[in-house]
Amino acid sequence: MSVTTEAPAYPVDKVNRVKRRHDRGHYDHETVHRILDSAALCHVSYVIDGQPYCTPTLFWREETRLYWHGSSASRMLRNLSDGEPACLTVTHLDSLVMARCGFNHSADYRSAMCFGRARLVTEPEEKLRALTMMVDRFFPGRTAGLRESSKQEVKATAVVWMEIERASAKIRAKGLADDEEDYALPIYAERVPLRTFLGEPEPCERLLPGVERGADLKAYQAGRLLEEALLEAYAAAYA
Amino acid sequence: MSVTTEAPAYPVDKVNRVKRRHDRGHYDHETVHRILDSAALCHVSYVIDGQPYCTPTLFWREETRLYWHGSSASRMLRNLSDGEPACLTVTHLDSLVMARCGFNHSADYRSAMCFGRARLVTEPEEKLRALTMMVDRFFPGRTAGLRESSKQEVKATAVVWMEIERASAKIRAKGLADDEEDYALPIYAERVPLRTFLGEPEPCERLLPGVERGADLKAYQAGRLLEEALLEAYAAAYA
Repeated sequence: MSVTTEAPAYPVDKVNRVKRRHDRGHYDHETVHRILDSAALCHVSYVIDGQPYCTPTLFWREETRLYWHGSSASRMLRNLSDGEPACLTVTHLDSLVMARCGFNHSADYRSAMCFGRARLVTEPEEKLRALTMMVDRFFPGRTAGLRESSKQEVKATAVVWMEIERASAKIRAKGLADDEEDYALPIYAERVPLRTFLGEPEPCERLLPGVERGADLKAYQAGRLLEEALLEAYAAAYA
Repeated sequence: MSVTTEAPAYPVDKVNRVKRRHDRGHYDHETVHRILDSAALCHVSYVIDGQPYCTPTLFWREETRLYWHGSSASRMLRNLSDGEPACLTVTHLDSLVMARCGFNHSADYRSAMCFGRARLVTEPEEKLRALTMMVDRFFPGRTAGLRESSKQEVKATAVVWMEIERASAKIRAKGLADDEEDYALPIYAERVPLRTFLGEPEPCERLLPGVERGADLKAYQAGRLLEEALLEAYAAAYA
C-alpha cells in the first residue's frame, strides 16, 4: 500500500512565485514557518496614497496567521472591512560570499515573504489574548507573572493580524560558487559566515531582593544564537 | 561673532515624519547615513498592481543616493522616466527588553527609512561604475583583482538607484524603562543585547597555491561585529 502525503503548502501564483533563481524557492508551510519563527524582527510593506512604506517591527506567527504591533496603525488600516494589502518579510543573512568575478559575489540567506491583508485586532478578548502572546511567544508564560495591563495600555496598543494568503521562502546556502573555468585563476575567494548572538543578559539594577530570573527566559543564554533561542521559546510557548 | 551652522538633513513632511514616539526620530544626514553604511542588507518596498512587496537585498549608499541589485527589476521598474515610488529600510535590532508589564516590553534598535523613486541604471559607463562599487563598497579595491565581467554578466545584472528624497532614522537605545511605580514590584526584568558577528572566514578549497587573502578583505576578521567591518570598509572604499 502506498500513501501519497503532500506537505501543506501555500498556493502559488504570479504574486509570490519566485521568478529570479526559482530553484531557491519554497512554498511549503514547514520551510516558510521555520524562517518566520526563528526571527523576532520583520519588515512590513504597505501602501498609503500610492507611497510604499517599509516598516520594521516585532512580530509572531500562529498557524497561518501573523501578528504584529500596530504602530502607525491609525493611518495604515483605514479599511477595516477588507483589510489593507501588506507584505511581511523576514530575512536571515547567513554569509557574505567573495568570488573570483563580480557577478558571482553573493550572500547566503533565508528569507520568507508573506502576502495578505492586514487588519486590526478589535474584538476585546482576542486582543487581550494577542497581547499576552506578543510577550509569551518570546518568553513563554511570562505574562502571568507581570503587572497586569491597564485599560489605557491595552487601548494604546494596536495589534494587527494578517492571514497568510500566499507566501514564498527563498534560500541560498551554497556558499562560494564560481564558474568552473574561474577556479584556475590566481584570485582569492572565500565565504564569511554571519551569526547573531545573545550577549550577557543585563538584569535591571533596581530588582527587589530575592527576585530571580525565571523559566520564561530560559532560552536566552549568553553566547547562544538568537534564532535558536527564538525557536526554542516558540516551541515552548505553543507546545 | 556667532555662526549658525546647520547639519545637513533630509526634508520632513507627512511621508517621513516620525509620528509614533517622535522623540526617537532623526532626519540629519549623519545619523541616517551611519545606520545605512553599517548594514549590507536592506528591505525595499514597492508596489505592483496595488500589491506591496517587501524584498530583501544587498545595497549601498553614495552621498544621498542608494543603489541595489535589481532582482525582479523587470516587473518592478516599468516606468523608467518617472521612477517607481519605493521605500528602502535598514534596521539593526540591538536588544530585547523584558519589563515588569507587557506594555513596557520593547527592543532597542536603530532603523533608517528612505523614500524616493527607484530607477534602473541604464547609462553603460555609469552601470560599469556601479557594478564595481557593488563589490568595492564592501571589499575596497577588490574589483581590480577579479576576472573581468563579461558583457552577458553585465547585461544580466540590473542595478537600481534611488535619490533619497526624504528619510528618517528612528533610534531606541534606553534599554529597560518601567513605569516608576512598577520598580517596587517583585518582578524580574532585564535587557538582552544582540550582536551580529563575523565567523571564521572559509577560504575556497580550490585556491591556487600562493594565492593569499588581500587588503580588500582586511576589515573582515573573525569575531568582529559585522557593522564595524562594514563601516570600516565603507570608509576605505570612499576615502
